Amino acid sequence: MDYLLNWHLTEEDVAYLRSLNQFSEDFLEYLANMRFTGDVYAVKEGEPVFPGEPILTIKAPLIQAQFAETALLNIINHQTLIATKSSKICRAAGKGAVMEFGLRRAQGPDAGVYGARAAIIGGCTSTSNVLAAQLYDIPVAGTMAHSWVMDFDSEYDAFLAYAHAYPENCLLLVDTYDTLRSGVPNAIRVFRELEKEGYRPRGIRLDSGDFAYLSKKARKMLDEAGFPDAIICASGDLDEYSISSLMQQGAKIDLWGVGTKLITSADMPALGGVYKLAALIREDGTVVPKIKLSDNAAKITNPSFKNLYRLYDRESGMAVADLITMREEKIDESRPLTIFHPLETWKRFKVKNFRAEPLLHTIVENGKLVYRFPKLAEIREFSQKELAKFWEEYLRLDMPELYKVDLSEQLHSLKSNMLDSIRSGRTEELG
Amino acid sequence: MDYLLNWHLTEEDVAYLRSLNQFSEDFLEYLANMRFTGDVYAVKEGEPVFPGEPILTIKAPLIQAQFAETALLNIINHQTLIATKSSKICRAAGKGAVMEFGLRRAQGPDAGVYGARAAIIGGCTSTSNVLAAQLYDIPVAGTMAHSWVMDFDSEYDAFLAYAHAYPENCLLLVDTYDTLRSGVPNAIRVFRELEKEGYRPRGIRLDSGDFAYLSKKARKMLDEAGFPDAIICASGDLDEYSISSLMQQGAKIDLWGVGTKLITSADMPALGGVYKLAALIREDGTVVPKIKLSDNAAKITNPSFKNLYRLYDRESGMAVADLITMREEKIDESRPLTIFHPLETWKRFKVKNFRAEPLLHTIVENGKLVYRFPKLAEIREFSQKELAKFWEEYLRLDMPELYKVDLSEQLHSLKSNMLDSIRSGRTEELG
Repeated sequence: MDYLLNWHLTEEDVAYLRSLNQFSEDFLEYLANMRFTGDVYAVKEGEPVFPGEPILTIKAPLIQAQFAETALLNIINHQTLIATKSSKICRAAGKGAVMEFGLRRAQGPDAGVYGARAAIIGGCTSTSNVLAAQLYDIPVAGTMAHSWVMDFDSEYDAFLAYAHAYPENCLLLVDTYDTLRSGVPNAIRVFRELEKEGYRPRGIRLDSGDFAYLSKKARKMLDEAGFPDAIICASGDLDEYSISSLMQQGAKIDLWGVGTKLITSADMPALGGVYKLAALIREDGTVVPKIKLSDNAAKITNPSFKNLYRLYDRESGMAVADLITMREEKIDESRPLTIFHPLETWKRFKVKNFRAEPLLHTIVENGKLVYRFPKLAEIREFSQKELAKFWEEYLRLDMPELYKVDLSEQLHSLKSNMLDSIRSGRTEELG
Repeated sequence: MDYLLNWHLTEEDVAYLRSLNQFSEDFLEYLANMRFTGDVYAVKEGEPVFPGEPILTIKAPLIQAQFAETALLNIINHQTLIATKSSKICRAAGKGAVMEFGLRRAQGPDAGVYGARAAIIGGCTSTSNVLAAQLYDIPVAGTMAHSWVMDFDSEYDAFLAYAHAYPENCLLLVDTYDTLRSGVPNAIRVFRELEKEGYRPRGIRLDSGDFAYLSKKARKMLDEAGFPDAIICASGDLDEYSISSLMQQGAKIDLWGVGTKLITSADMPALGGVYKLAALIREDGTVVPKIKLSDNAAKITNPSFKNLYRLYDRESGMAVADLITMREEKIDESRPLTIFHPLETWKRFKVKNFRAEPLLHTIVENGKLVYRFPKLAEIREFSQKELAKFWEEYLRLDMPELYKVDLSEQLHSLKSNMLDSIRSGRTEELG
C-alpha cells in the first residue's frame, strides 16, 4: 500500500520515457500526474491462503490497475513465499526458536530486509539483519563469527574476550577448529570463568558437522560440567526437512539459525501468484466479467468481481473449506452447503453447522487508506492463531491433505457459461 | 564499491544501536565516524571465475573489513548468481536473443533491478524492467499483456488497436484464447492491415502450450501468409534446459523471454560465496596468515594475502588453468608449470608455452576509487570475450569438464604446514 498510495513519476522518469520515442506528450503528462484513486480489497497480512484464491483485488481505472501490476506481484509473491517457507521451518522446529540468518545469501538487499520481515510473520523470533530489526522492531540476534575466533592466538582467548564483551549473552561458536575436542572444552573453561564473575553462560553454537551426533555429545559435556541450562544452537544449511529429521533423531538443539534456504525459499524460489483482469465495469455500472483461457484447467481464471470466505465448523471451530463467491453474494449459514472439488467436480461433500467468515477487507477506498496496519508482532500472532484453525493433516510436510477451495454455485455457473459460449463461438467461427 | 565508499551511520542508526544496550558510547561514536580507508582488489565485473578463487580481497582495519562483510556477500553472491544463470540461458539460446522478463517473480524490487543488470552481463539483450533499463541504459523490451487482449470485445480488435499504437514494433501475443485457431489467424489478418499502411509487422509471441509444435505450425502459417520475416517469440517457464531441448526439437523460435527461472536462478537460488579472514597484518608489517578448518576439505580456506592468475596457452590463446598464488609471488612463464588438482593431488599435468594473466585489479586504494568502471554494455562485451577463451568442454550444460584451479607451490606448502601444525598442536594438547 505504501507503493500504491505514493507512486509518482519524477521529471527524470518522464524524460526517460520520452527518450524512448514511443509515447505522446499527452500520454506522458497523463502519467506524470496519475495517482491511484481506486479501491483495494485484500486478505489480512499473515492469513493462510490457498492456490486460486483472490487474495488482493484492485478496483480502479484500467490504466491505474495495469500500472500497479508488476510492483504488486513482485512484492506479494516474494513476501508470501518467504513467510510460507518460514512457517514450514518454524513448525518443523516445534518448541525450538528459529533465528533468520540469511542476509548474506539473499537475492539483493531488499530480499534480505523484506525477507526478514516475512520470516517473522511466518514464525521466526529474531533476525541477524540489523537494518530489518531497526525498521520493523524485530529482536536482533547473532553470535560470534569464525573470524572472531581466528583473529585471536587461540580459541580459548577468543572465547574469553567474547565472554567479557557480552557476559549476559555469551553464545560461543565452537566449530572453528574441532567441535568436541577443542570448541566445547574451551567453551566450558570460559563458562567457568564467567560463572566466577557472577554470570550464567547462554550456550554454544554448532555451525558444521553432524548436528545429531555433535549436539548429543555436547549436551552431555555441558550437563556434566554443570551447565544444563546452557543452550545449543545449530546453524548451517538447514530447512524444514533437515530440522524435522534432526528432531526425529533426538538432536539436542534448542535454537536454530536458518539462513540460505529460508531467505531464498531454496526448493521453490518463486511463488506463481498472478494478477488478472477479472471484470470491466462500464460507465453505467454494469459489471462485464472477463475470463482468460488456458490448456491447463488450473490456469483458467475465475471471472468477475469476487469475494472469499472461510467456512468454520461451529462445533470444533476448525476451518473446513474456503469458498470463492461473487462479490455481493450472501452465504446462507442456516442450510447445508455442498462443496465441490474445483477441478475434479465428482468429489464433493456437505458442510453443515458452519459459519462463513469473509477474508477480504477494504484496505483502500477511492485512493485513501481506510485500514489500520497492525504492528509486525501482532501480524505474527494473528498468523499463528489463524494457522491453529487448520487440522494438522493440512499442515504436515509430507503428503498434506489438500484443503478444499470451492466456487459458489453462482460463480461456478457464470464460469461454465462463459467457457461454453467461448467454445461454441469458436466452433461456429471454424465451422 | 558504491556501498563501501559511501557507508555511514545516520543519527537514527546510532540511536537504534544505542537502544540495544550492548555498546559503549565510545564505540558508537567510533562507528558513527567510521569510513572505509582500506584497499580493494577484485576481478573485473563479467570475468568468469571458479570455485575457491579469491575474487575480491579487502585489506583494511579489521573492524572495517568486518563491517563490510554481509553487504559485500549479499551483493556479490546475488549478482554473480544471476549473471551465471543468464550466461547459461543465453548460451543455450544460441543465436536467439534473450529478453529478461522476471521482475514480477523476483525476490523483491532490488532483486528485479540488480538482477536485470546482472542478466545483461550474462548475455541478455534487453529487459522488461523499465526502472533497470532507465538506471543502466539497457534496451527495454516488452510485448502486449493478456489483459490487453481481454480488455477488447475480440482478439482481432485488440490486435488491431495494438498495431495502430505500435506500428513499428508490432509483436502480438497470440495465446489468450487459442493459439493456432484464433491467435495466429487474427495476427495474420492484422499484419495484412498493417502492411497496407506501409509497415512490416515484427511478429508474434507464444506464452503457453507446446512451443516446439506451436512454433513450427505458426512459422508455416506466417510463411504461407507472406510474413517469413515475422519473428516468433516464446516466453513462459523457460530456462537453459528447456531452451536447449526446444532447439534440439527444431522449434522455430527467434526470441526468448525468460522470467522466473532466470531472475531467481530457480534450480540453485543462492551462490555460496564466503568472506574469510585470510591474514592479519601486524603493525610492523608482518603478515600473519590465517586458516579456517572444516571436516569438508573444500571448505578449508586458503591462507594469506593472495593473487589469482589465469594461464593461457600461447598457441591457441585458450585458458588452460587458474593459479592461486601468494600476493607478491611472480610466475616464471619460461619454465613448464605442474598443475595439481587442488583436492585430488595425484591428478596433475604440465603446462608449457603459457602466459599468466593476473585477474585481480586494484579498485580502491586507501579508501579512494582508482578504477574506471566500464559501462554495462562494455562489461557485457568483456564477459563474452573472456568466456570465448574457454573450450566448449568447460561450458557445456551436461557433465562439463572441470576447469583446473590450482595453488602455487608456495601457497600450497604454506597451507600444508599450517594444517600440520594445527594437527600436531591438537594432538599434543590431547596427548
